[in-house]
Amino acid sequence: MFDVDLSSAVAEIKRLKARIVALQVPEGLKKRAYQIAEDIENNAGAEVLLVAEPCFGACDVPSSLFELVDAVVHVGHSPIPSIRFSKPVIFVPARSRVPVNDQLRKAVGLLTEPVGVLATSQHLQELDDVIEGLESMGMKVKMGEGDSRISHVGEILGCNYTAATAVGDEVGSYLLIGSGTFHGLGVHLATGKKVVVLDPHIDEPREIEQAKDKILRQRHAAIEKAEKARSFGIIIGEKVGQRRMRRARELRKLLRWKKKDASLILMDKFDPEKLKALGFDAYVSTACPRIAIDDVAMYDTPLLTPHELEIVLGVRRWENYTFDQMTDDEF
Amino acid sequence: MFDVDLSSAVAEIKRLKARIVALQVPEGLKKRAYQIAEDIENNAGAEVLLVAEPCFGACDVPSSLFELVDAVVHVGHSPIPSIRFSKPVIFVPARSRVPVNDQLRKAVGLLTEPVGVLATSQHLQELDDVIEGLESMGMKVKMGEGDSRISHVGEILGCNYTAATAVGDEVGSYLLIGSGTFHGLGVHLATGKKVVVLDPHIDEPREIEQAKDKILRQRHAAIEKAEKARSFGIIIGEKVGQRRMRRARELRKLLRWKKKDASLILMDKFDPEKLKALGFDAYVSTACPRIAIDDVAMYDTPLLTPHELEIVLGVRRWENYTFDQMTDDEF
Repeated sequence: MFDVDLSSAVAEIKRLKARIVALQVPEGLKKRAYQIAEDIENNAGAEVLLVAEPCFGACDVPSSLFELVDAVVHVGHSPIPSIRFSKPVIFVPARSRVPVNDQLRKAVGLLTEPVGVLATSQHLQELDDVIEGLESMGMKVKMGEGDSRISHVGEILGCNYTAATAVGDEVGSYLLIGSGTFHGLGVHLATGKKVVVLDPHIDEPREIEQAKDKILRQRHAAIEKAEKARSFGIIIGEKVGQRRMRRARELRKLLRWKKKDASLILMDKFDPEKLKALGFDAYVSTACPRIAIDDVAMYDTPLLTPHELEIVLGVRRWENYTFDQMTDDEF
Repeated sequence: MFDVDLSSAVAEIKRLKARIVALQVPEGLKKRAYQIAEDIENNAGAEVLLVAEPCFGACDVPSSLFELVDAVVHVGHSPIPSIRFSKPVIFVPARSRVPVNDQLRKAVGLLTEPVGVLATSQHLQELDDVIEGLESMGMKVKMGEGDSRISHVGEILGCNYTAATAVGDEVGSYLLIGSGTFHGLGVHLATGKKVVVLDPHIDEPREIEQAKDKILRQRHAAIEKAEKARSFGIIIGEKVGQRRMRRARELRKLLRWKKKDASLILMDKFDPEKLKALGFDAYVSTACPRIAIDDVAMYDTPLLTPHELEIVLGVRRWENYTFDQMTDDEF
């Protein structure tokens, strides 16, 4: 279901003369990890240490292991250019092999021109085919360049929609190749434009606005609950590309100005039990923006995004609600 | 229930001129973590980042955070002297306040002289009282010095019984201040001597041998199951004091010599789902020796200690079964 071409990684390991490499693969490729490790050992002559921890993105390279290895091979996500690593990290794409042609024909009727075309990391490979398809059906197409966290034109991350907002004023709607509702809704909230999702694993294209009401109701409930909180834990993600120290300190200052107790907390994998153990009345996460939204049902204690905390504290308006995005000046 | 004296940590933070410190506290102190963080911020003038991850020992200092902080304050365990850190780590004891006098009187009848007195990290404070108590009842007492992983006379860790084996030939039995059965059984298997446990949270002293049969049956079953395995994952713990790279490589060599597939795997927190995702037939853990023993019920796939793998491969005898211990030359 995914193509993984190791040849350039093998060449790079040889060029670096790396003797020990850590290998990170996404969950969908874990069962093939042994084979990938063997291929690297046999072809590059390096010892491979297979990373068992789940990996959620290019922000999630195991920097704690840099002292054990000469390089990291990271399969399945495109690089985030603004993250600097102290050891070489070799990014290997894992490209989905599912064609989206049938869906594309169905999607056209839902779209307003010009169409902003977007993809998540796993589906960048399909961008060219989709653009060609749209153009062959006579549709005007736009692609946006993202900021310093984005390595590919038209690419969006769960923490970054700048490739969408860059062309926000020029498009009538967006076509996003990806799965789930999170990314599409993020684009819709950031731009106000219609978003149609082409999910290669589903037969029909979907208009994302259907998911909006439910998620906004959940966010409103979390914000309301947090308005009664006296003490706040401000969570900084431990993952190397999620450490928004500046943003966290800003929020702490704001909370103290509003006479609330506030601590800075470091957390790697999020877990309701860890929040419960610390016992704060509410939490705000400066780590991956998806956690608070996707896992809302798991948390009894309110877990907010930074924007949502600003709404709680009266310095931002609910009417302007958008998903949280990461920018370099917050780190 | 625990005494935490921060004065020397505060002095050390000031001496180091540390501006940002990470604070690690054991689970039993998590609810007080906010207060401890505030005390450090107010008295030492340093910004505190509270570590939310559970912490299982002095082997579990978050080295991945060293680049974010000037020092780490680690509450609740004594240092492991042979672990070298690239940033200052300040160890603060959390001493249990539970008296064990009544139990001591009951324990005396179960003990054979001379008595080897031992304690786990949290109960080192009670060692002096226990020794005094035993001597006042006319009992002869012995204390052993551990190896380079042990910082206190008579101290044992879940991965190290050298303070016990050092006096193994000179004692008739051991009295261990601690909780649970793991440490006591480890001492018993390593020395063959009777072990009585004084658990400050339980009224009666316990003879540890009662737990032996059940645990040995579990271990025997795991070993038998692993004899049918074709592929093995050799797990190296990511925690800074658990990275037994040499031991893991030795085991891989042994497995390949026995014509088995074998991969080296890095894992932080152990979890049956992570093992299942990788799909090996059996695993051997060179990380904390407690995991395979304490969590046996959680794992469908056999999870062995290094000794147990050697039994599977026919290079060690079941009759000599002991718990796994960590030594410096395995790292």
